[in-house]
Amino acid sequence: MSEKQIYLDNTATNPVAAEVLSSMLPYFAEAYGNPQSMHDWGDGPREGVDAARQQVAALIGAQANEIIFTSSGTESNNFAIKGLAMAQQAKGKHIVVSAIEHFSVLHSVKTLQKLGFEATEVPVNSSGMVSPIDVKEAIRPDTVLVSVMLANGEVGTIQPIRDIAAIVKEAGIIMHTDAVAAAGNIAINVVDLGVEAMSIAANQFYGPKGAAALYLKKGTRIIPLLDGGIQEGGRRAGTENVPAIVGMGVAAELAEADIDGRAKRLSALRDRLIKGLASKIDHMILTGDASDRLPHHASFCVEFIEGESMLMLLSSKGVAASSGSACTSKALKASHVLTAMGLPPEIAAGSLVFTIGRDVTGDDIDYVIDTLPPIVERLRQMSPLYAKYLKDKGGK
Amino acid sequence: MSEKQIYLDNTATNPVAAEVLSSMLPYFAEAYGNPQSMHDWGDGPREGVDAARQQVAALIGAQANEIIFTSSGTESNNFAIKGLAMAQQAKGKHIVVSAIEHFSVLHSVKTLQKLGFEATEVPVNSSGMVSPIDVKEAIRPDTVLVSVMLANGEVGTIQPIRDIAAIVKEAGIIMHTDAVAAAGNIAINVVDLGVEAMSIAANQFYGPKGAAALYLKKGTRIIPLLDGGIQEGGRRAGTENVPAIVGMGVAAELAEADIDGRAKRLSALRDRLIKGLASKIDHMILTGDASDRLPHHASFCVEFIEGESMLMLLSSKGVAASSGSACTSKALKASHVLTAMGLPPEIAAGSLVFTIGRDVTGDDIDYVIDTLPPIVERLRQMSPLYAKYLKDKGGK
Repeated sequence: MSEKQIYLDNTATNPVAAEVLSSMLPYFAEAYGNPQSMHDWGDGPREGVDAARQQVAALIGAQANEIIFTSSGTESNNFAIKGLAMAQQAKGKHIVVSAIEHFSVLHSVKTLQKLGFEATEVPVNSSGMVSPIDVKEAIRPDTVLVSVMLANGEVGTIQPIRDIAAIVKEAGIIMHTDAVAAAGNIAINVVDLGVEAMSIAANQFYGPKGAAALYLKKGTRIIPLLDGGIQEGGRRAGTENVPAIVGMGVAAELAEADIDGRAKRLSALRDRLIKGLASKIDHMILTGDASDRLPHHASFCVEFIEGESMLMLLSSKGVAASSGSACTSKALKASHVLTAMGLPPEIAAGSLVFTIGRDVTGDDIDYVIDTLPPIVERLRQMSPLYAKYLKDKGGK
Repeated sequence: MSEKQIYLDNTATNPVAAEVLSSMLPYFAEAYGNPQSMHDWGDGPREGVDAARQQVAALIGAQANEIIFTSSGTESNNFAIKGLAMAQQAKGKHIVVSAIEHFSVLHSVKTLQKLGFEATEVPVNSSGMVSPIDVKEAIRPDTVLVSVMLANGEVGTIQPIRDIAAIVKEAGIIMHTDAVAAAGNIAINVVDLGVEAMSIAANQFYGPKGAAALYLKKGTRIIPLLDGGIQEGGRRAGTENVPAIVGMGVAAELAEADIDGRAKRLSALRDRLIKGLASKIDHMILTGDASDRLPHHASFCVEFIEGESMLMLLSSKGVAASSGSACTSKALKASHVLTAMGLPPEIAAGSLVFTIGRDVTGDDIDYVIDTLPPIVERLRQMSPLYAKYLKDKGGK
């Protein structure tokens, strides 16, 4: 690795905060019991899980008994989409989602389609925004679930969930939002938003991998994804991952305590990065909405070159970035998000995403502003697309 | 808690071994990257996961690419039952399971039944043993999956999986075994056993909660339970829980290194406990098979009293035990395992399970042999069933 280490891939995952790790440690080999046990060894772990449930609920304005712990944002999304749809299939078998949802939502929908469900994908505009009007038009008499993400991890656009949820509620339909990329980064209140279900994941806000949650509004019926024991009120079986859950609770509390301050600080860094790069690199498009975007999120398409090449050269200079979703970064396919936003595949191929971690400084940002342009220049020198562009331009 | 602390509830969960915890620590805040990332931060985590896959494979005689990491034994069982059945539904929609499977198997079967599958539950004899002949008779032309557990956590009986798998293979059907209670406690080789799928969980052998695996024989088709990204070869989406997976690997290696030695040592303690208690408490039945049982497993039904009361009084004396499965211990229903073995509910209610942890000593066992009889005596004094028994006996 380079001597410099600048982590701008917050959306992929994050280090566990020091306070989070120390909160977890007693639960590995001391308070190690099973929370379901009827002897004293279960007490400490059970209390740890209960406290975490309160802390996670507080982060999103929910009640503790509306939090179901899961193992990942992906599991929460699978659970929500499959479980909410299956619970209502007597009422109807149609689902509405946006075209830019995470694959854990879109592929869950595909699985449901094999079971006889139908789905409508609502489009987005060029900045990755879903229109509430489009959601309204997609709703049918047999629609039983609408799922639109709160913010997109690839382009940072924050969706008008409150407006969408109002329309969905009006139609008497249940609304889920994937808030994995948003939770911990922007203030969230499930009551304000008016959603019945929300997915969040601890590793997005300096909690551990392996801990996530589904918020489920009291009284909302769901079919379990994991059948078995009576954990999580019979809605999610499996021995509770106590250390990870405890860590998620502490991470939620830390995130909530500083949420506006951090957003303010990171959005200043984000704007500095966007401006700095824009002034030095031409043929570079800001992807996502310019104003309604995650505070720590700067994403681009750099024309004529490939995102993967930029990532590797940036990595050799000590900078971690991403190119589309972490879950698909190795799949080397044009991002479905950028494609849905109307970008042609050859431009989408140049996707570059910076998500700024909490420890990043202004100097780090300036380093990236200095480091990326020569990388782009170098890659463009090797690019047949760029050569063709120059030739066509010269010929005019 | 009592000054004594004797943990005899290994099947519920376990402390993480010191070597396991220290192997995990670097992955929380140092090598914290996402294994799917295309920059250097992904390298260490990816190598950690790869190494763990080798270690876990070695524990059960599998190849590394036959190991799919999951978040719990429950998830592995759900994944196996639902995923293997769904992958073959064009071929048939009938499943065979034993009557004493864990609820994560039995309830997964129930979910499939709602989707049009049929299921046959094979009975067990009075020692909780499944007969291969019964499995053979349960197989139909449309059977696509047989699932019989390797060992039962409530009564310790080890099933003749090799014989059952041979019959299942002969019929051209896929065989899954839930080895959660067995793995790490007895030597296991998936090739010897002849199964296509096997569930194991790290916390059963001093690995962390939140880490488990499904062994899936190369070439066996399965439908994912968690849809989304490309992790685990596209078979189980969701960011890898790197620290937990690394810990599971080290735990597997530790378990394998001492598997026969530990089994020998624990079975001596088990026999001492069984003999000691039998000599002091009358009207107490050993449940499960007397010889084909897990080396660390001693389980009983104590007549005229309730398991839960014994657990609480034992706990007050510093002894952790259980009464049936940890996942259902708070459900206060007669165990489906004991009922399937032909025990009437009033006797099943007196279920008491000791699973001996690796740090338990002979003195600890002697303490339990001294501590339980007065507890039983005290509870029987308060028991209307016992009063009735004495009266009936006196009246004869």
